[in-house]
Amino acid sequence: MSKTDLKRLIAVARGDLPADLVLANARIVNTFTGEVERGSVAVAEGRVAGVGDYSEAAEVVDLEDRYLAPGLIDGHVHIESSMLDVEQYARAVVPRGTLTAVTDLHEIANVTGLRGIRYVRDRARRVPLDLFFMAPSCVPATSMETSGATLGPAEVRQVLGWRDVLGLGEVMNFPGVVSGSDDMLDKIAAAGTKARDGHAPGLSGRSLNAYLCPLLGSDHEATTYEEGLEKLRRGMHLMIREGSAEKNLEDLLPLVTDGNYHRCMLVVDDRSALDIIEDGDLDAVVRKAISLGLDPVRAVQMASLNTARYFRLDGRGGIGPGYYADLLVIPDLREFRVERAYSRGKLVARDGEALFDVRGRRSRWITNTFDVAPVTAESLALRSRGDGPVPVIEIIPGQIVTGYAEATPRVVDGAVQPDVERDLLKLAVIERHRATGNVGVALVRGFGLRRGAIGTSIAHDSHNIVVAGVSDRDILAAVEAITASRGGLVCVADGEVLARLELPIAGLMSPEPLETVATKLRELEAAAAGLGCPLASPFSVLSFLALPVIPALKLTDRGLVDVLAGEFVGAG
Amino acid sequence: MSKTDLKRLIAVARGDLPADLVLANARIVNTFTGEVERGSVAVAEGRVAGVGDYSEAAEVVDLEDRYLAPGLIDGHVHIESSMLDVEQYARAVVPRGTLTAVTDLHEIANVTGLRGIRYVRDRARRVPLDLFFMAPSCVPATSMETSGATLGPAEVRQVLGWRDVLGLGEVMNFPGVVSGSDDMLDKIAAAGTKARDGHAPGLSGRSLNAYLCPLLGSDHEATTYEEGLEKLRRGMHLMIREGSAEKNLEDLLPLVTDGNYHRCMLVVDDRSALDIIEDGDLDAVVRKAISLGLDPVRAVQMASLNTARYFRLDGRGGIGPGYYADLLVIPDLREFRVERAYSRGKLVARDGEALFDVRGRRSRWITNTFDVAPVTAESLALRSRGDGPVPVIEIIPGQIVTGYAEATPRVVDGAVQPDVERDLLKLAVIERHRATGNVGVALVRGFGLRRGAIGTSIAHDSHNIVVAGVSDRDILAAVEAITASRGGLVCVADGEVLARLELPIAGLMSPEPLETVATKLRELEAAAAGLGCPLASPFSVLSFLALPVIPALKLTDRGLVDVLAGEFVGAG
Repeated sequence: MSKTDLKRLIAVARGDLPADLVLANARIVNTFTGEVERGSVAVAEGRVAGVGDYSEAAEVVDLEDRYLAPGLIDGHVHIESSMLDVEQYARAVVPRGTLTAVTDLHEIANVTGLRGIRYVRDRARRVPLDLFFMAPSCVPATSMETSGATLGPAEVRQVLGWRDVLGLGEVMNFPGVVSGSDDMLDKIAAAGTKARDGHAPGLSGRSLNAYLCPLLGSDHEATTYEEGLEKLRRGMHLMIREGSAEKNLEDLLPLVTDGNYHRCMLVVDDRSALDIIEDGDLDAVVRKAISLGLDPVRAVQMASLNTARYFRLDGRGGIGPGYYADLLVIPDLREFRVERAYSRGKLVARDGEALFDVRGRRSRWITNTFDVAPVTAESLALRSRGDGPVPVIEIIPGQIVTGYAEATPRVVDGAVQPDVERDLLKLAVIERHRATGNVGVALVRGFGLRRGAIGTSIAHDSHNIVVAGVSDRDILAAVEAITASRGGLVCVADGEVLARLELPIAGLMSPEPLETVATKLRELEAAAAGLGCPLASPFSVLSFLALPVIPALKLTDRGLVDVLAGEFVGAG
Repeated sequence: MSKTDLKRLIAVARGDLPADLVLANARIVNTFTGEVERGSVAVAEGRVAGVGDYSEAAEVVDLEDRYLAPGLIDGHVHIESSMLDVEQYARAVVPRGTLTAVTDLHEIANVTGLRGIRYVRDRARRVPLDLFFMAPSCVPATSMETSGATLGPAEVRQVLGWRDVLGLGEVMNFPGVVSGSDDMLDKIAAAGTKARDGHAPGLSGRSLNAYLCPLLGSDHEATTYEEGLEKLRRGMHLMIREGSAEKNLEDLLPLVTDGNYHRCMLVVDDRSALDIIEDGDLDAVVRKAISLGLDPVRAVQMASLNTARYFRLDGRGGIGPGYYADLLVIPDLREFRVERAYSRGKLVARDGEALFDVRGRRSRWITNTFDVAPVTAESLALRSRGDGPVPVIEIIPGQIVTGYAEATPRVVDGAVQPDVERDLLKLAVIERHRATGNVGVALVRGFGLRRGAIGTSIAHDSHNIVVAGVSDRDILAAVEAITASRGGLVCVADGEVLARLELPIAGLMSPEPLETVATKLRELEAAAAGLGCPLASPFSVLSFLALPVIPALKLTDRGLVDVLAGEFVGAG
């Protein structure tokens, strides 16, 4: 802030000038001390001037003993996973209380490289949500897949130099770090004194030690109590994640203690627009943590101050003099429903509704990222190599890790067939960035479709097209529909499109308003359920099946990957 | 560290290469989680490679269930207060477990400006103690005294740009901040994203809010429970101080709770060589905190990890992969006596003895900083303005704040006289940097001298000569002795020097070995006690009587200062 503004802020704090806003008679959630404290908060120049006894202001709002909490800070989110463009994402999460988010744009970067990151940064300037960025460290995530762009150490270093980039994004290539690969060590070194997010699902013992030697600071991939505890003990900050497809809160919350909670954070990682509308964003995680027994003030600390400290975001995460006036009015702390949200002292949301709307023109290139080679039934054939069992990707509900199962498939004319009765569907990943014609095919169990197919162009992290279906005809119809709209989610049956959401922005995001996107997602999920799918978020689950850094078995456009072994395996 | 070294560290962590050192069978003080954990620690390239099950190493030391703690980090210390030059300071504190110290060199800066800071930085490179620096923000502390040098915003900005400078040093000029002075706001802005230490004795309510608007991050001046709690609630990190003259631990420890301990640190601020030898350094504070009931692991957290986090010192304050191998072997955690200290994996102290010795040549200018105008009995005369009471500086044992007392003095020939029976001594501050001839004179109570005088050239923060005595003759003898050695501490009686410690390095520090300095300090304190002084550290107490940023009544070379009013008052 300018010196003139700061002088006015100080004068307001002294009581020599009236404030812009006084929020009076609040029960202040004090994240610094873990208490609830009664008082009034004076705001000027978008900052908190003082806490205590203030009443002179241009506007005085009597909170009548409601709670006042700092704006929530989401420490790890891929905003592309909301399927919303930035302004609509802000309209979705700000009324929920998320006023700052640290986003790793590796989804859009995998499609369009630095151009995509710049696209989001530019649009983010128009909304009352403070977006910070992490430099994507692993684009592509591995060399076992085909992405639309590659970020080498030079590009990563360039992004790390930007002022609103807080550090190096999740270092998913843990085999690279553990083996001391030059590429990964160079990228980590480029972070300098900025934060370095880790990503080490299942790593433990000596491998975890090795991975941490370059001082990776956080992890958001722990799924069990033991895994989380070991990571905390070895010095990692723990980001406890509760996303659309990744639900770790219930398993990890028991390990939060008086001795370590200050190194724990709550994050969402990936949340769809529908989940945000129906359940909530980070507020839903706070709410669930409280319902699971966490002290409400501590839950807020873990979703604000702790995150600010980890990322070295000064003046955020608490209500204190000089801090940003990002404030949430909450009638009942245990229910944790945000009644009003103030960003920089301005009311930006009330009763769940955003009080802002932002529109802007969009460059043509961002909606034109598809280049797909023709796909035929022949492309989808899964050749059998014998009579024995073949690997099957086993979906684990509520997790993004998969099981490595096996089944003896039905084979016709030397080709492995889907088998609805045993829930063995065909899964296909079709390269879509540069018309290589690459198609990966394997069997998957867990979608439960009796008919048709579901498909998406959101396929972490390379974002090729991924489709699961009962027949080649349905899979081809899904691929055709997604390609026609240059991105999207579809549900088809008997060659007909039953429901769809077009995602032309980099094949990941919709230009439509939040409410429209949510409606279409509901239709898609209903359609998938109508075909027999028992999963809560089938498209989210589908989107992680092509991510070969998450154990155990994943499918890319180049083939089936045994993640822990780090190698391709025959699918047929 | 170089990439080659990092690769080797990772290979050791993986178990593919032997370590340089394995400390086996340790009870590890885990500051990350607040636990004690059994395991072995592998070290390579001066860093921890891994924690867990390691045994292959060039050297294996079986700790036989002894505790292993991270090296202590002192977050706020003026090393000049030890009266030791840097290498001897390191010899004093490293065996006590202080392996990292954040020092604000404003003592030497007040005498010699940036040259003095560079002098210490250069010498610090030779010792196994990691010194970091804060840019002195208030040189001089106020405009009500005469210092040897001035650091303006341009100099402060220059120092803040140095790599080993962690931020802006204690912002003592709180009236300047609260009133929005350009000079102070410019200096604070120059800190950018680096730490900004506060210093706000007694500030509360709206004044405290105003002071904090520029996001000052810490305070080490709280002396009461209420003061400490308010500062924590307003967002300050609390540095709980236990120095030679400033003892706040007993009063402040009760406010440390599960909710706020992660924002609390233990620091020493000012400790003399004698106290370090006899009582200890930061280890003594940890020990005392434990004896007062603090959990030992938490005490270590507050003297290591919390400090590292506040100052953003990556890889310090814990025992984890990639962290500096600064490690302490401690047989009994509650007794907290350091048996062995490892710096970067090298054994640097054992059983209280430093295993290193460093000598180097010293530039001539640093021992030649005195320019004193002649002082006579007439200079010391305290003219009476009437028959009424006059202000008396009242010493409060164990505190650096003073009381503002009054007494009706004995007056002879219009001049106020000391009065041994009522413990009213004469206090004189003689400017010594630029021969201005300035002499401040007032009455002081609390030294209890029956005869003679004590004097020192350590006189925070401008470091003029300060002497308390029963007669002008003794005061003059003390001034003469200090001037002759270009700095030092003296105890005189009847015009004779009873004991002295020469401090020719900037008038603040001795070139002699730690043990010699300690012996001479013992002789000085014994001599002062022999003259009737009941105080534990009379020279330390004396050194704070000229500091006009610490309430309530202080004396500078320009006169007697009512600190809270911020103005001179008549002394006679």
